[in-house]
Amino acid sequence: MKIKPECATCIIRQIVDISIEVTDDEIEQFRLVKGCMPVINEEYHNNAVPAWMGTVIHRHFKKISNCEDPYKRLKETANDTAQNYIEDVENKIKNSDNELDRLKKCVLATIAGNSIDFGPFSISEDIVPMIEHTLNSELKIDCSKELLEDLKSAKKVLYICDNAGEIVFDILLIKMIKKYVNDINDIVVAVKGKPILNDATMEDAENLKINEFAKVITTGSDIIGIILEECSEEFLKEFEQADLIIAKGMGNFESLTEYNLNHKKLYYILKAKCDPVAEFIGVDLKDSVLLSNKQLQKNLANIDKN
Amino acid sequence: MKIKPECATCIIRQIVDISIEVTDDEIEQFRLVKGCMPVINEEYHNNAVPAWMGTVIHRHFKKISNCEDPYKRLKETANDTAQNYIEDVENKIKNSDNELDRLKKCVLATIAGNSIDFGPFSISEDIVPMIEHTLNSELKIDCSKELLEDLKSAKKVLYICDNAGEIVFDILLIKMIKKYVNDINDIVVAVKGKPILNDATMEDAENLKINEFAKVITTGSDIIGIILEECSEEFLKEFEQADLIIAKGMGNFESLTEYNLNHKKLYYILKAKCDPVAEFIGVDLKDSVLLSNKQLQKNLANIDKN
Repeated sequence: MKIKPECATCIIRQIVDISIEVTDDEIEQFRLVKGCMPVINEEYHNNAVPAWMGTVIHRHFKKISNCEDPYKRLKETANDTAQNYIEDVENKIKNSDNELDRLKKCVLATIAGNSIDFGPFSISEDIVPMIEHTLNSELKIDCSKELLEDLKSAKKVLYICDNAGEIVFDILLIKMIKKYVNDINDIVVAVKGKPILNDATMEDAENLKINEFAKVITTGSDIIGIILEECSEEFLKEFEQADLIIAKGMGNFESLTEYNLNHKKLYYILKAKCDPVAEFIGVDLKDSVLLSNKQLQKNLANIDKN
Repeated sequence: MKIKPECATCIIRQIVDISIEVTDDEIEQFRLVKGCMPVINEEYHNNAVPAWMGTVIHRHFKKISNCEDPYKRLKETANDTAQNYIEDVENKIKNSDNELDRLKKCVLATIAGNSIDFGPFSISEDIVPMIEHTLNSELKIDCSKELLEDLKSAKKVLYICDNAGEIVFDILLIKMIKKYVNDINDIVVAVKGKPILNDATMEDAENLKINEFAKVITTGSDIIGIILEECSEEFLKEFEQADLIIAKGMGNFESLTEYNLNHKKLYYILKAKCDPVAEFIGVDLKDSVLLSNKQLQKNLANIDKN
């Protein structure tokens, strides 16, 4: 999907937030924000993809701030916040009536985790009420039956993660998916190759010991979402071989929808955290979504007709 | 006062908002936002004054959009919104116990009006609850006793307006002040000389017939706040002759605090609608303030000492 005019406000807020995060020196904060403005101006146009625009600008920020991981502290906080909730959430899922209900609850839990995000939300925003609200809400777009059917016949599943914090909740869904495949190597979890925004990296995955119940790889790069042309051979091989792909969060959605992947069994799980994404999907702001690639194509075709 | 790093987010949001306001054509919206970015980059530095930076950027927007009054519709809406409340507010003031209480209530009413502002707030924000909350709240900084004393000895009062909408509520305070001066020409109300942001202009003043109980002039220019060097002779004469000045809103506060006006009896009336202004004054976001120039100097001196 392409950016909307209002994406200018969001990207500059991210840069302001992170400038204040990496230094207390106001003169330096001005230098960092000002240093990103020409790059924002260059990348901001009606054909830009939000995740790709964000990638270029956040990479530039890392360079001019000489800071390889500006969100490090915030990611640790996000992981801690998620850990505080994980037991409650697990208990809720245990009480599920059946397989489909359990799957839905797992998906909602990972969307609750997707609330922990300093891209669309300001660092100062209190995300705890949003986690609770999401857990107690319904999926606005619900392709869970389709996903359950596909899981039952899946040989190899690729699970593309989004943010730190969120990844703690992702484990619940990953554990459930694992029951449907034969081997630990048949569920592949992908995190970022290098730090970018608050996205989960191998460090997060290792701290959470995800390798105990899945094969963990990286995309091989510091891309917000996925730019296939910049991914590692290893990632591309898994992407090709997987007969079911689950992509978490807005960045993966924004970027993967730029490719023709109609032949893939691909599911997007996300909270629509800004108007441009909500509008593109056809839901309201802050709605929770489990959307198959197939369903998305139908929706877009209907919009084109009307 | 000077801008803070986060002022970048606010100014770009204003430009996005107003681009969407003046055209439905998305390509044109991108052109307008992108067209303002180099000017934002040029004006944005640690020594910039928010109201002055805003002036340059909004003037540039008017030029590249070929639209002399981008906020025209929004200002009309703001005036209508305020008119819906004016009777309720007048009734509240009528029930005042005494002169000081009446003055405070009038001041709070004009601050409630100051909630109607598309500078710091997004166009989509619902301002009605904010008006009601302000009316029922207290002044966080309250120099009303000092103002009442000064009013009693005032010969000539200059009242510098801020926004459309707000100006409807200003009338209540202007009418009260009028009782303390001898002649209609001794209370001078200043609006903007040309449209800028959602600031009140002569058209707003004329529609509200303010000239029936005050002398109405303009600043002679389209400045957010006041840049004395750009004001008309007429305004400067009234500014010089007034022995009591009341300046409404953040723009006037941001800009007038850049001058040495310690010799003036000057009062700022505003709602602190963003963190940089709230921090500078030493109050919380959304607090209501009636602050004398004298008190401000004392506060700033104390901050310097600590």
